Amino acid sequence: MRCDGRSNDQLRQARIIPGYLKFPLGSALIETGNTTVICSACVEERVPPFLKGTGQGWISAEYGMIPGATPERNQREASRGKQSGRTMEIQRLIGRGLRAVVDLNALGERTIWVDCDVIQADGGTRTASITGAFVALAQALNRLRAEGVLPKLPVTDFVAAVSVGEVGSELMLDLCYEEDSRAEVDMNVVMTGSKKLVEVQATGEGGPFSREEFLQLLALAEKGIAELIQLQRSVLGPVGAEISANTWK
Amino acid sequence: MRCDGRSNDQLRQARIIPGYLKFPLGSALIETGNTTVICSACVEERVPPFLKGTGQGWISAEYGMIPGATPERNQREASRGKQSGRTMEIQRLIGRGLRAVVDLNALGERTIWVDCDVIQADGGTRTASITGAFVALAQALNRLRAEGVLPKLPVTDFVAAVSVGEVGSELMLDLCYEEDSRAEVDMNVVMTGSKKLVEVQATGEGGPFSREEFLQLLALAEKGIAELIQLQRSVLGPVGAEISANTWK
Amino acid sequence: MRCDGRSNDQLRQARIIPGYLKFPLGSALIETGNTTVICSACVEERVPPFLKGTGQGWISAEYGMIPGATPERNQREASRGKQSGRTMEIQRLIGRGLRAVVDLNALGERTIWVDCDVIQADGGTRTASITGAFVALAQALNRLRAEGVLPKLPVTDFVAAVSVGEVGSELMLDLCYEEDSRAEVDMNVVMTGSKKLVEVQATGEGGPFSREEFLQLLALAEKGIAELIQLQRSVLGPVGAEISANTWK
Amino acid sequence: MRCDGRSNDQLRQARIIPGYLKFPLGSALIETGNTTVICSACVEERVPPFLKGTGQGWISAEYGMIPGATPERNQREASRGKQSGRTMEIQRLIGRGLRAVVDLNALGERTIWVDCDVIQADGGTRTASITGAFVALAQALNRLRAEGVLPKLPVTDFVAAVSVGEVGSELMLDLCYEEDSRAEVDMNVVMTGSKKLVEVQATGEGGPFSREEFLQLLALAEKGIAELIQLQRSVLGPVGAEISANTWK
Amino acid sequence: MRCDGRSNDQLRQARIIPGYLKFPLGSALIETGNTTVICSACVEERVPPFLKGTGQGWISAEYGMIPGATPERNQREASRGKQSGRTMEIQRLIGRGLRAVVDLNALGERTIWVDCDVIQADGGTRTASITGAFVALAQALNRLRAEGVLPKLPVTDFVAAVSVGEVGSELMLDLCYEEDSRAEVDMNVVMTGSKKLVEVQATGEGGPFSREEFLQLLALAEKGIAELIQLQRSVLGPVGAEISANTWK
Amino acid sequence: MRCDGRSNDQLRQARIIPGYLKFPLGSALIETGNTTVICSACVEERVPPFLKGTGQGWISAEYGMIPGATPERNQREASRGKQSGRTMEIQRLIGRGLRAVVDLNALGERTIWVDCDVIQADGGTRTASITGAFVALAQALNRLRAEGVLPKLPVTDFVAAVSVGEVGSELMLDLCYEEDSRAEVDMNVVMTGSKKLVEVQATGEGGPFSREEFLQLLALAEKGIAELIQLQRSVLGPVGAEISANTWK
Repeated sequence: MRCDGRSNDQLRQARIIPGYLKFPLGSALIETGNTTVICSACVEERVPPFLKGTGQGWISAEYGMIPGATPERNQREASRGKQSGRTMEIQRLIGRGLRAVVDLNALGERTIWVDCDVIQADGGTRTASITGAFVALAQALNRLRAEGVLPKLPVTDFVAAVSVGEVGSELMLDLCYEEDSRAEVDMNVVMTGSKKLVEVQATGEGGPFSREEFLQLLALAEKGIAELIQLQRSVLGPVGAEISANTWK
Repeated sequence: MRCDGRSNDQLRQARIIPGYLKFPLGSALIETGNTTVICSACVEERVPPFLKGTGQGWISAEYGMIPGATPERNQREASRGKQSGRTMEIQRLIGRGLRAVVDLNALGERTIWVDCDVIQADGGTRTASITGAFVALAQALNRLRAEGVLPKLPVTDFVAAVSVGEVGSELMLDLCYEEDSRAEVDMNVVMTGSKKLVEVQATGEGGPFSREEFLQLLALAEKGIAELIQLQRSVLGPVGAEISANTWK
Repeated sequence: MRCDGRSNDQLRQARIIPGYLKFPLGSALIETGNTTVICSACVEERVPPFLKGTGQGWISAEYGMIPGATPERNQREASRGKQSGRTMEIQRLIGRGLRAVVDLNALGERTIWVDCDVIQADGGTRTASITGAFVALAQALNRLRAEGVLPKLPVTDFVAAVSVGEVGSELMLDLCYEEDSRAEVDMNVVMTGSKKLVEVQATGEGGPFSREEFLQLLALAEKGIAELIQLQRSVLGPVGAEISANTWK
Repeated sequence: MRCDGRSNDQLRQARIIPGYLKFPLGSALIETGNTTVICSACVEERVPPFLKGTGQGWISAEYGMIPGATPERNQREASRGKQSGRTMEIQRLIGRGLRAVVDLNALGERTIWVDCDVIQADGGTRTASITGAFVALAQALNRLRAEGVLPKLPVTDFVAAVSVGEVGSELMLDLCYEEDSRAEVDMNVVMTGSKKLVEVQATGEGGPFSREEFLQLLALAEKGIAELIQLQRSVLGPVGAEISANTWK
Repeated sequence: MRCDGRSNDQLRQARIIPGYLKFPLGSALIETGNTTVICSACVEERVPPFLKGTGQGWISAEYGMIPGATPERNQREASRGKQSGRTMEIQRLIGRGLRAVVDLNALGERTIWVDCDVIQADGGTRTASITGAFVALAQALNRLRAEGVLPKLPVTDFVAAVSVGEVGSELMLDLCYEEDSRAEVDMNVVMTGSKKLVEVQATGEGGPFSREEFLQLLALAEKGIAELIQLQRSVLGPVGAEISANTWK
Repeated sequence: MRCDGRSNDQLRQARIIPGYLKFPLGSALIETGNTTVICSACVEERVPPFLKGTGQGWISAEYGMIPGATPERNQREASRGKQSGRTMEIQRLIGRGLRAVVDLNALGERTIWVDCDVIQADGGTRTASITGAFVALAQALNRLRAEGVLPKLPVTDFVAAVSVGEVGSELMLDLCYEEDSRAEVDMNVVMTGSKKLVEVQATGEGGPFSREEFLQLLALAEKGIAELIQLQRSVLGPVGAEISANTWK
């Protein structure tokens, strides 16, 4: 049995509070079990050098964790003077995941900065970040449209993410920290509302795994992500309905 | 009149949620108006080099702000690769303020790490950090006593802080960001439950100020801090009562 | 047709020169098409802090690229003062891939440092690094056994890697840089001699992809990796035969 | 009695040598007891980004200490790769203090860089820096006027600083290092020639202090600063007389 | 007798492979004994700030060493976050040496970046870098002329370098690492095809040395460099002949 | 004629004030023309890792320049966050120069830290640093002997340095900044009291030079250094006499 009594194919209790912060263009707090992430989205009227003059926009993601988020205090990266490899890997993953569902040409030459700050960490912080960040991003882009900056909402689909893994020979959905640290296989999946894959990262550090296990894990992830996207749709209200409609076209 | 209709000698609405985080030894969320800070306190069983072998403990504070805390996104210090001078100044101030009410010899050769992470910033983040951090710290020290690590609670008094300032020739208590940015004189005061001063930092960048203004501002700060300490006492429950009792001895 | 006339399921011309460097315990140069990587493996008689006292060893990988490796000079990370997120991501991937086929308990409390330095870059540098690094690693571990430091060869299987992708709706094996930069889906696969998966990283930044495409790409990767492992086995000579034998047990 | 036989309300022997360096626009060496600081002021024809296009100038201060300045060698910040929090705090204080007596609009869109380099440190280096830097600054601004860059001298008053403190229950003016390290209360005051306050920073790390002690310390500081400003006026000659005259208007 | 049986005035076996890399404008691999360096030269259409608007070009050199180049793994400077003093010293030396034989005015306002990456290190890496880099540079400048970017080849002479030293009272040419580490006097000489000196760096850390020893070492270096320049001339083919011709004018 | 009317073979006016600083074990201020450097020497009771357990000591030198030392303010390395290549090159040169005249075995396992801080820079700061640092070092070592830490003075000879160069076809001793910036050949020589060479660094960036020029410059340097060592001897008093006596043994 799992630490919190869930069945193997069950998500943790999830909650998303859109507009959690007062100042950014878009924001959301996401809780999945004991993992909590604050996501925000701001606009900057310029793009990275490699996009200058192309008419195309960009989405840049950054990720951080407050020192009190974990059982053992995790050292503040700002005082160490650099971000860890893990942090960089995560923020690159978040950025790719979100860009996959935004029409960057329709965004125009501007950057949306998406920040995911983990307030409490109990496993799955990178996937919760993606799921929450999508809500903050959709809210920000909707605001830009409302302000007349964008002619239409440049969101082509929902996107959410979840972790799955093999723990003690059991295949499980949405690992908490304790499960994750024992996992033989650990996999993060990013998927759209149309059930298309955006990112699949599977790691068998505790030992290699077979294609069959891999496919079963993928199926578990699909189930979980579909539920998370349902949650995104409901908290986004009319904007959520509009994105659903877009996806069907 | 002030932006939120308060009178000049009135604090913003304040709220402290002790134990806000699940994992650290002590924690608190503090809200004062639109300023929100998450404070946490952890223990490390060693001290900085200059205290090794002295039997004395230490309290180290760190301060950060998430990028979405401000109207204009503030750049993540971890990705810039260093903390700003402002951040360093603030975390030194928090540390001194808290150490003033802890018996470092009774703490023994260990460090309490106090982290203050600003989630939303509308002025007064450094003073809110001190006021909230005291609650997290008291909770952590109480936990160490409960676990038998400390024979008694090494807290000698309450400590809280507030900003005051002269804005458009008016003397005001607890400035929000808009007031702070217009202030001719800006002053932060840290004071104990026994109304003793711990830190006074007054700055007249918008022009020098007289001793009389200074004293009036100090009186305003005393009034505000007394109310904040009342709030700390009430949220700390029995531990708050015990600290009050200590103070009278 | 592909830039170098290969068919879609064909690897680039590959060559591995074991013992390419004179000084390290193990080394190899790997060429796959116009991509060239020098791999080396050294031993250090200590482990990272989290393994101290566990009796377990570690494999740490680092990755770099000389400035002249690319058509446009790539800035030297040492003079920029930090490694990019991409570099960190790659060196973490290499480390995980190699650790999956080494018995870290049999290695004992020591670290094998594996360095992959790209001399020429035409796509697939991270997968070539893994394939070449395995040879350097096997050579180094064999040397440690010959010196009596290790009682047996702690290698449990071969490991190699390849990239696959969808480029202009074609599914292709072993992308060169030009193909990679146009790919709608880009995927790196790390697999063992027993055809078990170690890492799967699939990214659809140019648009999401279906499970079917995913599986076809995986099959392509399997084919390529089997050929690369055949190459590793042959260049490793008796050590290669011994690892093959191990795998069958 | 104090280490050098002074009475409690007596300054250390002070000396200021204006124009100490050959190359900068303005410079001064200041000695107070065994503390020695070299101050210089240079002009740069641009302002920080937040002032671009405002027509307003800026004064930026930097502070450093040579390794041989202290009894125990203090590590060179340039070789450690970063400035300490203490250094940053001090240079921000110096900058604010000097800006309070300069008409930044009259300065125009240019920056005066003020550098304070401590050659010998026996307590009070930050206050000596302010007192000496004012002389270097006045000299530089006078030079800019003489060269026709500035139509008038944009200095509105003198500014100087001193430390005061409570040491073993005695209130003392101008602490040397040995006194400072024993002080229960440590306070730095920056004041103008018109006896207006610019900065007050009081710290009771050795224990909280009362408002009465605070006021007595402030009075001591006022006495000391008045004497230091008298010294500034005399070494500045005609420029000093002119600033005195300005102040009376 | 020397470790590899050479006589004291004999160079190590040397080989230069021009055009070793596929992508840069110019490149060369140089081997001298067991020391191997990959050199490359790229062009950038701008100059350092101090040359802007002067019409003059620049040559910037960078130097690095892969971790597997030495018997004991040398730590990767990119992961340490900074280049060592030794590296900086070497790259400044390479830059000065090459600039001495290039007509920077004829180069025009552009920078040639020269990179020297040591693949294997057995002493003399800085001198091998200069000797090899000259070939890469000449090739790159010839290419720029062929492309019509430069009207003529702005190379005024050959330049090469070698180390000499006193080891166990013997004066030796072209020290390998083992000799270098025992040397009482260590000297690097950079010289042109016309036998003019460009750089002489002699160090007697193992004890001071006389002017006579110095002159004998200089004569040894002259002999070695003449041979290395002969090698450069031959591998450069027609370009080498053209530079020879230039030199006689 | 030279800018200050000296003849080509004449040193600038030089002055050394031993014991210039109050706190370090040894110190000196050196002035040569308008170049001024403060040198200090401190002891640390440990050695760099590569010397642990060898019984041998070490001398480490650091070099810095205050921002006001030059006509154009030079940026503070501590605030830029790193030392320049030039600084690193210089401090390595100073260290080698001083170590050449100290018996490191007689010093025992301790490090002498030598700091050279340039207060005013008009050319020749690295050579003035060496000449002044020797005095600070001799004073510090003498103090350690007086305190019984060292049984004897571990100084084997004097050491001093000077720059020479070819400027407008004239060979000149002791270049000031203006001459140095025009020099075709620039050379720094470090020599002992016994006229033995310790370091020779000659650079012909303005064009290659002949062996004859080189030898004439060396002769000029010898003349200048002999005079500087005479000055060192006289300011060191009895310690100077003792070192002279040592040298004759």
